[in-house]
Amino acid sequence: MIMLEAVYHRIGQNWSYAYSSKTLHIRIRTKRGNVSRIELICGDKYSWDKFNEVIEMDLLSSDGLFDYWQAAVQPAFRRLVYYFVLYSDHVEPVYYLEKGFYNDPPTVTYEGLFDFPFLNSEDVHMPPEWVKDTVFYQIFPERFANGDLSNDPENTLEWGGTPSPSNFFGGDLQGIMDHLDYLSELGINAIYFNPLFAATTNHKYDTMDYFNVDPHFGTNEKLKELIIACHARGIRVLLDGVFNHCGHTFPPFVDVLANGQSSRYADWFHVHKWPLEVVNGTPTYDTFGFEPIMPKLNTGNDEVKEYLISVGRYWIEEIGIDGWRLDVANEVDHQFWREFRREIKKSNPSAYILGEIMHDSMPWLQGDQFDAVMNYPFTNILLNFFAHRRTNANQFAQAINTQLVSYPQQITEVSFNLLGSHDTVRLLTLCGGNVQRMKLATLFQLTFQGTPCIYYGDEIGLIGQHDPDNRKCMEWDTRKQNLDLFAFFRQMINLRKSHAALRGSGLKFLPLPEHTQILAYERWDDRDRFLFVLNNEDASVSIVIPALQPSKWRSVESPATIHFIDGEVHMSLPPYGYAILHTHEEDYRA
Amino acid sequence: MIMLEAVYHRIGQNWSYAYSSKTLHIRIRTKRGNVSRIELICGDKYSWDKFNEVIEMDLLSSDGLFDYWQAAVQPAFRRLVYYFVLYSDHVEPVYYLEKGFYNDPPTVTYEGLFDFPFLNSEDVHMPPEWVKDTVFYQIFPERFANGDLSNDPENTLEWGGTPSPSNFFGGDLQGIMDHLDYLSELGINAIYFNPLFAATTNHKYDTMDYFNVDPHFGTNEKLKELIIACHARGIRVLLDGVFNHCGHTFPPFVDVLANGQSSRYADWFHVHKWPLEVVNGTPTYDTFGFEPIMPKLNTGNDEVKEYLISVGRYWIEEIGIDGWRLDVANEVDHQFWREFRREIKKSNPSAYILGEIMHDSMPWLQGDQFDAVMNYPFTNILLNFFAHRRTNANQFAQAINTQLVSYPQQITEVSFNLLGSHDTVRLLTLCGGNVQRMKLATLFQLTFQGTPCIYYGDEIGLIGQHDPDNRKCMEWDTRKQNLDLFAFFRQMINLRKSHAALRGSGLKFLPLPEHTQILAYERWDDRDRFLFVLNNEDASVSIVIPALQPSKWRSVESPATIHFIDGEVHMSLPPYGYAILHTHEEDYRA
Repeated sequence: MIMLEAVYHRIGQNWSYAYSSKTLHIRIRTKRGNVSRIELICGDKYSWDKFNEVIEMDLLSSDGLFDYWQAAVQPAFRRLVYYFVLYSDHVEPVYYLEKGFYNDPPTVTYEGLFDFPFLNSEDVHMPPEWVKDTVFYQIFPERFANGDLSNDPENTLEWGGTPSPSNFFGGDLQGIMDHLDYLSELGINAIYFNPLFAATTNHKYDTMDYFNVDPHFGTNEKLKELIIACHARGIRVLLDGVFNHCGHTFPPFVDVLANGQSSRYADWFHVHKWPLEVVNGTPTYDTFGFEPIMPKLNTGNDEVKEYLISVGRYWIEEIGIDGWRLDVANEVDHQFWREFRREIKKSNPSAYILGEIMHDSMPWLQGDQFDAVMNYPFTNILLNFFAHRRTNANQFAQAINTQLVSYPQQITEVSFNLLGSHDTVRLLTLCGGNVQRMKLATLFQLTFQGTPCIYYGDEIGLIGQHDPDNRKCMEWDTRKQNLDLFAFFRQMINLRKSHAALRGSGLKFLPLPEHTQILAYERWDDRDRFLFVLNNEDASVSIVIPALQPSKWRSVESPATIHFIDGEVHMSLPPYGYAILHTHEEDYRA
Repeated sequence: MIMLEAVYHRIGQNWSYAYSSKTLHIRIRTKRGNVSRIELICGDKYSWDKFNEVIEMDLLSSDGLFDYWQAAVQPAFRRLVYYFVLYSDHVEPVYYLEKGFYNDPPTVTYEGLFDFPFLNSEDVHMPPEWVKDTVFYQIFPERFANGDLSNDPENTLEWGGTPSPSNFFGGDLQGIMDHLDYLSELGINAIYFNPLFAATTNHKYDTMDYFNVDPHFGTNEKLKELIIACHARGIRVLLDGVFNHCGHTFPPFVDVLANGQSSRYADWFHVHKWPLEVVNGTPTYDTFGFEPIMPKLNTGNDEVKEYLISVGRYWIEEIGIDGWRLDVANEVDHQFWREFRREIKKSNPSAYILGEIMHDSMPWLQGDQFDAVMNYPFTNILLNFFAHRRTNANQFAQAINTQLVSYPQQITEVSFNLLGSHDTVRLLTLCGGNVQRMKLATLFQLTFQGTPCIYYGDEIGLIGQHDPDNRKCMEWDTRKQNLDLFAFFRQMINLRKSHAALRGSGLKFLPLPEHTQILAYERWDDRDRFLFVLNNEDASVSIVIPALQPSKWRSVESPATIHFIDGEVHMSLPPYGYAILHTHEEDYRA
C-alpha cells in the first residue's frame, strides 16, 4: 500500500519553485521506502497535446520518515501543469493531482493538475553569485585587535583581560587593518562584522547613530579605507544592521523620553502606555526581549522605514559594503524587509542580504526578503553529533538530508553555515576542549554546500563559555595560538576554494551500519570526487569500504592510514581521525 | 500508534498566521481518526517561566485522509514559541517540536520549539471588512442591456440574437444604469464588471486603451455617474483589470509592430525573436496562451509597472471604483502584484483585490498580493455534487472541509464563491436544465461563508454552453424570465443578508450515512442557528434527525414538510427539495 497520508506536495516554497529563469524544480515527499519510483507527467496547459513529457523523478534525499524526490523541468513556454504517478511494488500506481489521489490517470489531462502558471524571471530568487564561493570570518570589533590607542574608550583594560558584559579592550578598525595579512593567510574571503555604529555598549547592538562608525572603532573614512583594502585582497565585507530596535541613546528615542506623546517621534516606537517606564520588569513600550535600553522600532511607520532604508543604502553606496546581516530579523515585519530588499538591490544588485533567524525561515526566503539566513539548524545538527555526541552518524545524515530539502536549492547554496558566534558557547569549548573533535566538525562545515563562517579566534583555539566569555580578546601571541589548528583551517579552506565539488550540491552519505560514529560521505561535481571518512569516536578504528575503484583515488593529507587492497579501501583511523580521498570525476565514472 | 508521517505543521501559510493584530491561529494536521486530542503548549521565548499556557486544540475539520486542528492564541507580548502534544488512546503521547517527534517533553522548554517570532500588525492580512457581507453580481457589459442606441457598434444585432465570438448586441453603461432597480430588487450589493476599457472584441480582454471606457459602452463620465448611482444604493463596483497582457491595438504594441527592436516600447513585451510573427502557431513573443492579439506585458519593466499601477490608481481615485478583479493574475510576476497592492491600498485601503486563479493560490494570499481569488475549487466541489452528480454528500462535505483549512480564516471569509462566469458553461445548463438542482447549488452557495457571486441572468434561468453561448443577451421580457427562480434568489439573498450566521464560520455537516445524496449542515453564530437539509435526488425522501431540541426550531419557507415528534425532526422532502430550520442560538444553547 502507498501511504497516502505521507505524500506531500504544494505549489511554492521548497516544493515547486524557479531555480533559474529557465528551470523549475518540482519536489514531492513520500513515506520512506514506501514508493519505488515516481513519474512527473507535465506539459503546457494551453497546448498539452503538443507539449507534454514524462520525467522520471530522482530520489533527492531521505530522512527518518520520508523520501524526497525531485525533477528539474525546462518548460518551453515557461508554464507547467503536472501530476505525479507513484509506483510501488506489487500494487497499482496512484495518480496524485491537485485535489487528491486517484486510481486512474486524468481523462482530460490538463484539468485538475498542479499548476505552476508562469516562470517570470522577476520571481526567480537569485542570491548573489559570489556568496556560494565565499568563506566568511566573523569579527567582534571590540575584541579583534587594538590598532589605535588614541581612540580607546575610557577605562580600556589591558588586551587579553577577562571580558565582562560591560568592559572594553580597545579593539578597532585600525586593528583589523593591521591583520589583513593574517586573514589572507587563513584564506577567508569575506568578513562579517558585528555592529560598528556608535553605541554605548561593547557589542554595539544598542545603536545610537546609524550613520557613523563608533568613535572608539574609528571613522566612516577609516571603514572606507578598510573596505578598499579588503576588496583589493578579494575580501568582501558584511555589516550588522540592527533595525529591529535601536539603543536608548538614539536621538528620536531620547526625544520621546523627554517629550512623551508630544514628541514628533512618538510614533517611531510601539508605546502601549505613557509615560515610558518599566513596570514589574516589563517596559510600557515594545523592546527587544524585555530590555529597556533596546526599544523596538515601529517599522510600519513610513518615516522610520524611509530612515532605516536610507541607512541601508548609505553604507552600500557611500562606504562600499557588500551586504547586510540583519539582527533579530524575524521580529521585524515582512513588508519592511520587502521594501528594504528592493532598495538595497537597487543600490547593489549583488549585495548579500542575510537574516538572523534561528528557526525554519521559509516565510523570509521566498525571494522577496532575504538571500539566506544564519543556518543555526545546521549548527545544531553538527553540534549534536560532534560536540554533544547526542546522535549517531545515521541520525546526523538524516538531519542533514531533512535540512537539504527544506528550502529551494539556491537558498541552500548560500546558507550561512556557522558553528558558533558571539551568541553561542565557542566550538572548542562545546567539544570539551578536544581539538580533534573540533576539527571534525569544521571539516564537515568546510566541505558542505553553503557559506561557512568562522568565528574569530576559533581557528587558533580560543575557548569561551556563553557571553561574555565567548567574546574574549583575540590571541595574537603566536606562542599561545594553536598553530596546528590554524594550519588545519588553512588547509581545509584552501581545499574548499580549490574544488567546486566541495561547494556544490553533490552529496551522498555512505551507510556504515557497524560503525555508528563513523561518518562517511562523498562530494562531487563534474570535475572532482571526494570521499570523507570521519571517526567521531575516542578509539582507533579500521574500516573497509568496498567497490570504490581504488586504483583511481589518491589520499589527501590526513591522519589516517589508507591501503587499497583487492578493489577495496582499507583505512585505519586514529581516535577522532579522518581520511580524505580524492579522484577526478572522469576517472571515477570511467 | 500515532502515524507520524501524516502529521503536518509548518510556520506560515495556513498553518500559523496572524488572524488579527492580537490573535494567532495555529493549525496542525493528523491522520483522520488517529489522534484523540492535541494540546498546544506555548509561551513567550524571552520569559517562558512567567508566560506559558496549555491550550486544548479544537478539531476544526476533517476530510478523507486527515483531521485538522486549530487553536487561537493571544500572546501577551505578540511573540509565541510552541509545541504540540498528540494524544491517542492506549499509547504514550508524542511531543512534536520544530525538528521532529519525541517521546518526552523538551527539558529546556523554549529551545527547539516552533517559533512565531512577532505579530507585527503590518503583516496581518486584513481584507476589506465590507467584502464578507457582500453578494456580487457579474455583468458582461456587451450583453446586459442596451440603454443608448447612439453608441452601438456598427453591425449591432438585434437584442437576444445568437452570440458568436465576434458579434455585438449593443450592451452599455446606460443599459446597466436603467436596470439598477432590478439589481436592488434582487438584493445584490456589488457588481463585478467584465472589462469596460476600449478594445476591439466584444469581451474587451484585448485592451487598447487602459484609461478610457470603450466608446460603445459609454464614457468615463458615464461610468462615474453609474458608480455614484450604485454607491447611493449601497452597491459597490469592481472592474476587471487585464494587466497580464494587452491587446494588439494597444499603442505601445502598435509601435513595436511598426518599429521593431528600435521602438522605445521594445522592452514592454517579451520578444524572443525579431520580427514579431507567428511561426507554426507560436508567436515569437509571449502572449496569453498562444493568442497573437494578446501580447504579454513585461511587468518587470519599471515603465510598464508604473504605467499599469497608474491605471490601477486612476480608476479608484478619479472614477471611484471599489476594487479590481485581476485577469490571468497567476501569470504575472509576484513582485508586480506586491507593488500594485501597496499603491492600490494607498489609494483606497478598503479596495478589494481579487485575483483570477483557478488553482491552489497560497503563494498569492500571504497578505502581500491579493485579498482573495476567484474560488473555482469551490465551484468544482459544488458542480461535482449538484450538477455532475459525481460525488456523494460525504465526499462533498470532505472536499468543502479540505477547502476550509487550505487558507487562513480571513481569506475564506472573502473568497469569491462563484458557480459560473463568462468562462464556464452556465449553471442551469450544467444542471441539465433542472431548476431544482440549480436552486440547491445556489442555496449552498448563498449560505456558505465567503462572497457569493451570481453570473448575470442565472437568476432568471438563462442557459448557455461554453463561450460564446454563455454570453447571451440578458432576458428582460418578464414573460420569458423564470420569476419563481428570481424569487428564490431574492429570498436566499435576503436570508443571507439578514443573518450573519450564514456569512460566518460556524459550519457543521451532519452525517446521514443512509442517505448518500442528502446534504445536511448547520450554520450558526452567537445569535442564530440554521439547519439546512438538501435532497440531491430525483426521489422523495423522508428522514429523521434526532435530538435537535425541536420545540425551539421554526421552519423557513421551503419545499418540505416538517414535523417535530418526540424530540426529533421528521422531514419529507420532494425530489430535489430542501428544508431550512431556524432557531435563536440562545434558545438552542439553553
